[in-house]
Amino acid sequence: MAGTTQESIKDRTLGSDQPPGRSAENVNFLETLKRALQPGQVADDEETLTIYSADQGPLLERHLPLAVVWADSVEDVQNIVRACAEHEVPIVPRGAGTGVSGGAHATRGCIVLSLERMNRILDLDPDDETAVVEPGVINAELNAAAAEHGLMYAPDPASYKMSTIGGNVATNAGGLRCAKYGVTRDSVLALDVVLADGSLLHTGHQTFKGVAGYDLTALLVGSEGTLGIVVGITVRLKYLPREVHTIAAFYQDFRSAAAGVLAVGKARVQPAIMELLDNGTLVQLDELNGSDLQTRGKSLLLVQTDGFGAAAEAAVVRQVLSDGGATVTMEASEEAEMLVELRRNSRGVEVDDEFRVGEDIAVPRSKLVDFVAALEAMAERHQVRLKVVAHAGDGNLHPTFWLDRVDPATDSDALVRLNDALDESIRVGLKMGGTITGEHGVGQYKLRWLGLEQPEPVRELQRRIKELFDPAEILNPGKAI
Amino acid sequence: MAGTTQESIKDRTLGSDQPPGRSAENVNFLETLKRALQPGQVADDEETLTIYSADQGPLLERHLPLAVVWADSVEDVQNIVRACAEHEVPIVPRGAGTGVSGGAHATRGCIVLSLERMNRILDLDPDDETAVVEPGVINAELNAAAAEHGLMYAPDPASYKMSTIGGNVATNAGGLRCAKYGVTRDSVLALDVVLADGSLLHTGHQTFKGVAGYDLTALLVGSEGTLGIVVGITVRLKYLPREVHTIAAFYQDFRSAAAGVLAVGKARVQPAIMELLDNGTLVQLDELNGSDLQTRGKSLLLVQTDGFGAAAEAAVVRQVLSDGGATVTMEASEEAEMLVELRRNSRGVEVDDEFRVGEDIAVPRSKLVDFVAALEAMAERHQVRLKVVAHAGDGNLHPTFWLDRVDPATDSDALVRLNDALDESIRVGLKMGGTITGEHGVGQYKLRWLGLEQPEPVRELQRRIKELFDPAEILNPGKAI
Repeated sequence: MAGTTQESIKDRTLGSDQPPGRSAENVNFLETLKRALQPGQVADDEETLTIYSADQGPLLERHLPLAVVWADSVEDVQNIVRACAEHEVPIVPRGAGTGVSGGAHATRGCIVLSLERMNRILDLDPDDETAVVEPGVINAELNAAAAEHGLMYAPDPASYKMSTIGGNVATNAGGLRCAKYGVTRDSVLALDVVLADGSLLHTGHQTFKGVAGYDLTALLVGSEGTLGIVVGITVRLKYLPREVHTIAAFYQDFRSAAAGVLAVGKARVQPAIMELLDNGTLVQLDELNGSDLQTRGKSLLLVQTDGFGAAAEAAVVRQVLSDGGATVTMEASEEAEMLVELRRNSRGVEVDDEFRVGEDIAVPRSKLVDFVAALEAMAERHQVRLKVVAHAGDGNLHPTFWLDRVDPATDSDALVRLNDALDESIRVGLKMGGTITGEHGVGQYKLRWLGLEQPEPVRELQRRIKELFDPAEILNPGKAI
Repeated sequence: MAGTTQESIKDRTLGSDQPPGRSAENVNFLETLKRALQPGQVADDEETLTIYSADQGPLLERHLPLAVVWADSVEDVQNIVRACAEHEVPIVPRGAGTGVSGGAHATRGCIVLSLERMNRILDLDPDDETAVVEPGVINAELNAAAAEHGLMYAPDPASYKMSTIGGNVATNAGGLRCAKYGVTRDSVLALDVVLADGSLLHTGHQTFKGVAGYDLTALLVGSEGTLGIVVGITVRLKYLPREVHTIAAFYQDFRSAAAGVLAVGKARVQPAIMELLDNGTLVQLDELNGSDLQTRGKSLLLVQTDGFGAAAEAAVVRQVLSDGGATVTMEASEEAEMLVELRRNSRGVEVDDEFRVGEDIAVPRSKLVDFVAALEAMAERHQVRLKVVAHAGDGNLHPTFWLDRVDPATDSDALVRLNDALDESIRVGLKMGGTITGEHGVGQYKLRWLGLEQPEPVRELQRRIKELFDPAEILNPGKAI
């Protein structure tokens, strides 16, 4: 996979395996684009193309786009889509490029359409508790604006300081507090979408509830830019909790920590956050932050309660976790809150590549313990490294398998072992009633596993919906379904 | 509209305006159905046909179905759909028939497929906090089973003691506690659906989160049986709150009561229930129950808080409502809880007809006051009676317009006035950013207004999705879109 960048550039330049005349067509197409837009909205220098050729997902083969195009307005998006439709050029829409499934990876002969400059909060109504935003608004910026009114935008992917609402909508992003507050789909009321023919569609409703006609909004959320390009989003805001209590519970083994998750559930307390970290993750956090988490336990369960009942809920949580053998922080929760922040940011420091792949399997909550035990056995059998963090409240695990210091000369089957471990983890997760992706999306990378989860009739129905929306297949082809 | 029953029976028997040979075909079709099923699963006596010819929605024209068919199993549904597909007979699926938009009204030449006998809770897992049910399970029965484990199925339409989960899914039913706990769609994880060709499709995931492929589950929820027939539902359960506080706040005018809703929101308290009742509703409740609500105020706001923070939230609510001029119950909340029960059951005593139509408009919360003022002006101008209840937490109003003691001989334009009031209320609601249906569905009755809310391209896209799922248009034609 090293070296594919150069090969792709050659492909693009010489058109070695492309239809004859493609390059001349491309030049013509780029001229059309540039005429339709302002200077600075189209780039085709190699450095920019390389930067925008991939998101943070594992890359199987790098393709450089024909161009990177920045839209400033809905009309820009419409003009760009029309030009691409006319020239049969695929469009890969992109927010901040923080996706980890390759949903924004460039594909052969495409343009990358960046929505990052469409970053205005168009409306924020504290009485209606709604906001209307352009797709490029950063999740954290919307939250900062909402917080001024005692409100919040609930979905909080780990990337929330960088990722855009448009990107969150594309993947139906989850986050830490989904078990209590729902995923992106649950906060999206309405969408403005540019369809494959360049027309603009408005779906949904401004009200909290609305059941007129089919739920096109829900169909579009999570469709990863394959059905239309989201250019406006109306969201419901929720109440920023006034009180938050955070509990750190250290365990001597992961199994007991996972049992703690079920014990909190049995106490019928709904925490805002319930994050489970294994020993490998504690080691990594210590290395990154100079902390001494490993000395305190082999596994950590972080629980955050919020709202008017936060203190009462925290008291119950402390009790049931102590009863389950945990060492529970009894001091003020500042330290535990710092740990939540470390957990939130732990992913940003590593980017997946062919030697390190983070997964996104969700299993029914009761299977958490068994699944992690199975993962540990797999890592040992395939001689690969493993660490696991989980949004344990909703059974969503992020195991990362990786290889240390691989020398292809002496360890030629390292990548085979890694991929065997990945494949096995998916099969075992599915057998336990799980899904291949709880919140990251299928993108490009997880297409290899989608057929294991969804039988052919389900996939065929999705292909037909795709065909209905995008008969020429110009919208992010080869992704999501 | 009186007398249409007899006309329809004549149509069916003599086939007066039906394709030639239809009646012989029908006999043949019914024989096929009866052979495929057990005795007692098919009825075509006039009494049964009449009972099953309509739900509780306003009826524009009564058609009797060819037959009423009860499915006992998924295989039954598949066999019935295949027989109907072969004979091009439309299918109107039906749960308990408590819908109020005519989604289960029989249409010309159809069969009514009742799912009420498929009423088993197939699984209820207290650790996974999920349940798998057949479509005919009554909402209240699922809640009773869940309550044994400290769990609840959150969506609670006023019909919850009678209506089925399958029917709730068909309309994406709401209820009293949606503002906090979400609508039906938010609780449905997976569906088993029989498609128009008789094949069985499984959509969704058993896990709380899952983003593999397009969200077919969300597309099917609320599609009113027009895309497929739901034969199995996997739902997420939530925690039954241990503590509930209920507050009754009486106001001297509706406007102040509606302002109270916004005041609770500004205090950033999320009640489980927030019901707003106008004077007309209080008068009706007094008549039904012998209570003296009218003497205590002209409008009533019922607020219920729940969970570990219920008491603290109730204290804040009491304070802000008192500050806004309400007379707030300070005693134990038993009486207020009784009022919530009265409110829940108030709808069951009246069935809409051409002289009484209950609406289901939702507006952005900040428009509640203005919208109700506009409704009152309309009622006066068109000389029709009006009462309003609202799930105020999510801006969902149920205004009922009706006519008292109409004598067509002396008041020939009464129905015209009623319909003018209905139409005007819809137009004004839409102008305020509202929707024609917050939770009841479009069904058959609200099709006349759908074009006012959704422009042609949105409707055309839905028609094409319908065509993709059901090219022969046998699944509940003429409904929902």
